[in-house]
Amino acid sequence: MEKISLSTHREKEFVSIGGKINEIMKNKNWQDGLLHIYTPHTTSAITINENADHDVPLDIVQHIQKLVPKEANFAHGEGNSDAHILSSLFGASEQVIIENGKMALGTWQGIFFAEFDGPRSRSVYLKFIGQ
Amino acid sequence: MEKISLSTHREKEFVSIGGKINEIMKNKNWQDGLLHIYTPHTTSAITINENADHDVPLDIVQHIQKLVPKEANFAHGEGNSDAHILSSLFGASEQVIIENGKMALGTWQGIFFAEFDGPRSRSVYLKFIGQ
Amino acid sequence: MEKISLSTHREKEFVSIGGKINEIMKNKNWQDGLLHIYTPHTTSAITINENADHDVPLDIVQHIQKLVPKEANFAHGEGNSDAHILSSLFGASEQVIIENGKMALGTWQGIFFAEFDGPRSRSVYLKFIGQ
Repeated sequence: MEKISLSTHREKEFVSIGGKINEIMKNKNWQDGLLHIYTPHTTSAITINENADHDVPLDIVQHIQKLVPKEANFAHGEGNSDAHILSSLFGASEQVIIENGKMALGTWQGIFFAEFDGPRSRSVYLKFIGQ
Repeated sequence: MEKISLSTHREKEFVSIGGKINEIMKNKNWQDGLLHIYTPHTTSAITINENADHDVPLDIVQHIQKLVPKEANFAHGEGNSDAHILSSLFGASEQVIIENGKMALGTWQGIFFAEFDGPRSRSVYLKFIGQ
Repeated sequence: MEKISLSTHREKEFVSIGGKINEIMKNKNWQDGLLHIYTPHTTSAITINENADHDVPLDIVQHIQKLVPKEANFAHGEGNSDAHILSSLFGASEQVIIENGKMALGTWQGIFFAEFDGPRSRSVYLKFIGQ
């Protein structure tokens, strides 16, 4: 498996990781198969969404804070239960198809590391399963 | 990879795609492995839920519009930020096991294309990874 | 594919299944690949989150009942539409990487069967795809 390292700069933000994944895909010469993209952290997620208009990730980040407010009456002492809840709702992983050495994404799709409890240094795991 | 084409007829609806997947599975003679089911669109999702009582998808569609109202104060100019948010919450893909040429689904499970910004012409990507 | 059996004891709870998965992984001698973990039930989910402080799953369970109240005005006659909605929001499956005979999880991560309509007898399906 391969690892990506990244830094987040806000408490909640979407960081595009498609460029880093592309680089590794080319270095490893992955051609045809399925790529598993995974966060090993419990207060973050991997998600696929529009990567054209930056207002889209901003709208997502704004609305999820209304759905899961930081200040709710939580038991977990670290004060980041909201981030754990969002992590499960968004999910720890996504999978994309690789064909002819390219990710088969839709026109507007990008791959994001979703930070819910930053800023922090983070990792993403990649596992390619060839056909 | 294989592609399914479908048309949606409402702004938000669940369209069962299990029949079309079954057809391709038989044509391709997929026997044992994992099937990745993926939407290339950023205002839709793939989800697995009950396919017996049609009230279940209707209840889901009704409630998610309360969770993510279309009229919230969003920045993205196209007016479909609600659909982008739902896309990330539901997820762009699902994976099902294929054994002996059949999908290993639970008794009540069906596979749905979840439309959040229709009506539109849509695609679904399928990738089978054999054992 | 392999099956895990478990019993849930509350209406909504997170049941850690990492131990049972580890056991099967060792028996089957899975070494390197991707493990697909799947619930065949439409009122439950598979999710990955913190397995250290038990308050984290409790906070999640508490908050999701606010997001999707059992008493909303649903059409589905069985009274468990909330559980179906949560099932789609959390997702029917997760995938983890196996390397050198071990699951590549983050330090705090555990794998949970998320029960939304218990107590019940439940199953989990496992499918390993080797490299």
